[in-house]
Amino acid sequence: VVIIMPGREAEAGRLAEGLRRRLPSTAVGVWPEYGAADEVTAVVSWRHPPGVLEGFPALRMVASFGAGAEHLLEDAAVPAGVAVVRTVADGLARDLAEYVVAAVTRHRRRLREHERDQRRRRWRPRTYPARWTDLVLGMGRMGVVSARALAALGHEVLGWRRSVAAPVSGVNCLAGMPALADALPDADAVVCLLPLTPATGDLIDESFLARMKPGSLLVNVARGRHVVEDDLLDALDRGRPKHAVLDVVRTEPLPPEHPFWDHPGVTLTPHVAALTDPEAAADRIADNLRRLDAGEPLLDEVDRELGY
Amino acid sequence: VVIIMPGREAEAGRLAEGLRRRLPSTAVGVWPEYGAADEVTAVVSWRHPPGVLEGFPALRMVASFGAGAEHLLEDAAVPAGVAVVRTVADGLARDLAEYVVAAVTRHRRRLREHERDQRRRRWRPRTYPARWTDLVLGMGRMGVVSARALAALGHEVLGWRRSVAAPVSGVNCLAGMPALADALPDADAVVCLLPLTPATGDLIDESFLARMKPGSLLVNVARGRHVVEDDLLDALDRGRPKHAVLDVVRTEPLPPEHPFWDHPGVTLTPHVAALTDPEAAADRIADNLRRLDAGEPLLDEVDRELGY
Repeated sequence: VVIIMPGREAEAGRLAEGLRRRLPSTAVGVWPEYGAADEVTAVVSWRHPPGVLEGFPALRMVASFGAGAEHLLEDAAVPAGVAVVRTVADGLARDLAEYVVAAVTRHRRRLREHERDQRRRRWRPRTYPARWTDLVLGMGRMGVVSARALAALGHEVLGWRRSVAAPVSGVNCLAGMPALADALPDADAVVCLLPLTPATGDLIDESFLARMKPGSLLVNVARGRHVVEDDLLDALDRGRPKHAVLDVVRTEPLPPEHPFWDHPGVTLTPHVAALTDPEAAADRIADNLRRLDAGEPLLDEVDRELGY
Repeated sequence: VVIIMPGREAEAGRLAEGLRRRLPSTAVGVWPEYGAADEVTAVVSWRHPPGVLEGFPALRMVASFGAGAEHLLEDAAVPAGVAVVRTVADGLARDLAEYVVAAVTRHRRRLREHERDQRRRRWRPRTYPARWTDLVLGMGRMGVVSARALAALGHEVLGWRRSVAAPVSGVNCLAGMPALADALPDADAVVCLLPLTPATGDLIDESFLARMKPGSLLVNVARGRHVVEDDLLDALDRGRPKHAVLDVVRTEPLPPEHPFWDHPGVTLTPHVAALTDPEAAADRIADNLRRLDAGEPLLDEVDRELGY
């Protein structure tokens, strides 16, 4: 197995150590240093350089170092017979939920306004809405945990996904585009936790944003390409949404001249809503390497048709 | 029943309406306008003017419009035979928990630092601690809900109270002063949800703060008099705690010249962590008025010895 994570050498090193400890008889290399290319059967990738996967003729599995795998599906060098798996490390969904809860509660409780009052030395009690509805887009492993965390605060929670699935207690589950259009005007906060697929890219565009509730909040903790950024800037000017909390943007790092940096309606964090811990990732990836060897079903294998 | 809430006339009016609707045969007045003083058997108070309760010879119950009743216990005009009750309206504990979660998650996830980075146009991913311990002071009706909400985020939660009580799932419960002194150095966030009593006033003083963990957070959503404010200012200079989120202060509104206003280590909100909804309060108070009439045990009656 070769780990290819350019720019994240420290994490790659910790992951390699973790895999070696768990699988003593497996050779683990960190790109660009490893043994014979034709003996490589698995790759762990985080933004691997284009074309690099073509050099492994015996490749059988590519694991994303993270919960998203769109960078692997978009690489034409991953042959159809190669399994693509996501790595949903323990704690990842919980950390995402904590970030979502921080963003939503800050908006509901008007904490930005209170901080502005403090700077102006104004003691001004402000009420907060008695009822509050969150709409969670994407009810996969990540979305369900965030939806439950919001419901535990007493919020009404709507959970939207592509197709009907198992019910989630405390969450009102919706499916399909017409249900999304109906739900948007009711949501005080919309939280994007979708996988990035051809169907979900650019979903949050002018027509989506125009249906949002005045004064509402948009939280994106999925991928920058879910949001049409110029449309969001226009929508913020109209107060629908009033504020956006973005952990992801289309180009990361965000270019220095981008209007998000100093837009008063945008809170920006540098893709830190949930960090994959190399030790926890080693657990999941070692398990999948064992399964690959034994011919067992893989964990979190991506359906390449659906894109997640 | 007479409602005495100077400065909060709108809420007093809504509460009066709510009580009249629920108890059509009870006369409900809003101070300073009401019928015969010697027919008043119950008062609802929020910071009533000193001495005003002396004018009601038939008084049997005083209800605080809120979860704290220290202002009633400290009023020598409330005779020993008069029952003092708190009003813990539905949703109050939940709203407090939401505020606590907002304050603690913001600190753990370094969102203040990320916002500073954004103002400087810096894309700088910052890691967050893998393990996190919250210490909740006061495990009454309020504390238990906040402790559970923090535990649901995956935090380790210690719950401290005066004396040993029923266990709370997911919370490591402690009792007594020696256990508090032991727990303080382990807590990444300390959340004060104590009642204000002679035993808890000034609890958060120099010696308490000196035991806090470097870099930690103090959240006070109880009463300003729990905290020795000069000691807190000194402690913030030493980074123990690193930050304080204060919804309550010793003098409210905070005087214009107070150093909290522009201290970088203090986030201040104007006593809004949980607002008592007059409709929900009317439910609880009407229930207690019925119980008083029927000679049944009152809800949330205060033990005047303990102070809560």
